[in-house]
Amino acid sequence: MVLAVALVQGASRGLGLEFCKHILRNKSPAAAVIATCRAPEGASELMGLAAQYPGKVTVLKVDVNREDEIKGAAEEVRQRFGKVDLIINASAMLHPSGKGETSLRDVSAQGIISTLTTNTVGPLMMAKYFAPLLLRGGGCFGLQPPEKAKLHSGIIVNITAKVGSIGDNGLGGWYSYRMSKAALNMATRNLSIELARSRPKPYHRNVPKDKLFSTEHSVNLMMSIIDKLNIEKTGKAYNWDGTELPW
Amino acid sequence: MVLAVALVQGASRGLGLEFCKHILRNKSPAAAVIATCRAPEGASELMGLAAQYPGKVTVLKVDVNREDEIKGAAEEVRQRFGKVDLIINASAMLHPSGKGETSLRDVSAQGIISTLTTNTVGPLMMAKYFAPLLLRGGGCFGLQPPEKAKLHSGIIVNITAKVGSIGDNGLGGWYSYRMSKAALNMATRNLSIELARSRPKPYHRNVPKDKLFSTEHSVNLMMSIIDKLNIEKTGKAYNWDGTELPW
Repeated sequence: MVLAVALVQGASRGLGLEFCKHILRNKSPAAAVIATCRAPEGASELMGLAAQYPGKVTVLKVDVNREDEIKGAAEEVRQRFGKVDLIINASAMLHPSGKGETSLRDVSAQGIISTLTTNTVGPLMMAKYFAPLLLRGGGCFGLQPPEKAKLHSGIIVNITAKVGSIGDNGLGGWYSYRMSKAALNMATRNLSIELARSRPKPYHRNVPKDKLFSTEHSVNLMMSIIDKLNIEKTGKAYNWDGTELPW
Repeated sequence: MVLAVALVQGASRGLGLEFCKHILRNKSPAAAVIATCRAPEGASELMGLAAQYPGKVTVLKVDVNREDEIKGAAEEVRQRFGKVDLIINASAMLHPSGKGETSLRDVSAQGIISTLTTNTVGPLMMAKYFAPLLLRGGGCFGLQPPEKAKLHSGIIVNITAKVGSIGDNGLGGWYSYRMSKAALNMATRNLSIELARSRPKPYHRNVPKDKLFSTEHSVNLMMSIIDKLNIEKTGKAYNWDGTELPW
């Protein structure tokens, strides 16, 4: 049996933790989860989950603001698993203060830069160091088409947001968060172009995040989208119902 | 005679310097130019231009990576002029190395963050500190419509790029630069929404930058777009011919 390897970045809580649960519940024992977070020692829920699925969860310390930690994690995953089939970049912040800016008055250079570093630079650095492992993936996630030329090896999911759509922005505010997601959308688009040049090729998807649903329901919806991914749906942002979001 | 006050950020060379020349050539003596740059002491062309138009050019030291310098410049402009009619954010870098990334291998966290800081955070910080002065502008640039309710006070121009359009991105590469311009487009959109809530209101425009034309011709084209701006064309990105760019 081929082991499906999924890596969830930002796995200590929220959507990331829920993605780990979902994959373990629905794909174990055929799947292993690599769960990364900034501070594993304080991630009690994640540690409890790992204890429930012995041998199936590998917890790694990764602060996406630290390129050396991402690089080290990729090396460790290479040695242990030799590949990755799915990466979900789940960590994100609204703003270091915990509140999105309601007006220019609240905007600070440091607040924007912190938010961009975590929400945008982090996922792209994950892609940089894990791309070689995705290229060795066995296509265990998503939907493989009958055409051999269209088989994919791995999937990167960057979780975006409706407020990251420039075209859809009618309200303003939330400068840092909106800008970080717009820039992430560009990174996702770029990744889908660059990595599609390789064969076998991984592909990339943005899945919108919203506060309308419970975390569990959100992850169910997103995983049902991920489960139906194929190589022709790459480099786009989607609504919950699968319709495309404008950039 | 009302004095039109234009501020050009990044005025020591390239497009910024050309904007200063254009405004002085075409609007002086009715216009004053505030020219900001990181290092006035080394800006010999700009200093030469200032000598050609005695009393018409105010050179201020502003590194857009330094919020304190932006704040100080805004205070100085407030004291000397009491208003601004036009701000052009002209400074931008492709990448600290001078070369855009051709692939993920070239992408570094530090390179992206530097590029975002200069190209995206800088213009937004300019908007933050100069917005009160734009709101006191006399609408001396752009085209005022006959309807009083649609009069504008000031204009901010953020120079974007075709490669900053996510929807138009078919080639990939240039990660840092593309992401910085996508995030800047979001900031521009947000500014157009927030500042339109004030009366009299300034508005904002993205003008695409390309390498197809000489700097002088580029500035001529952009100024002819700026000269026809009105309040209903706010928060969008445009091609050279005035057609809209997709986000």
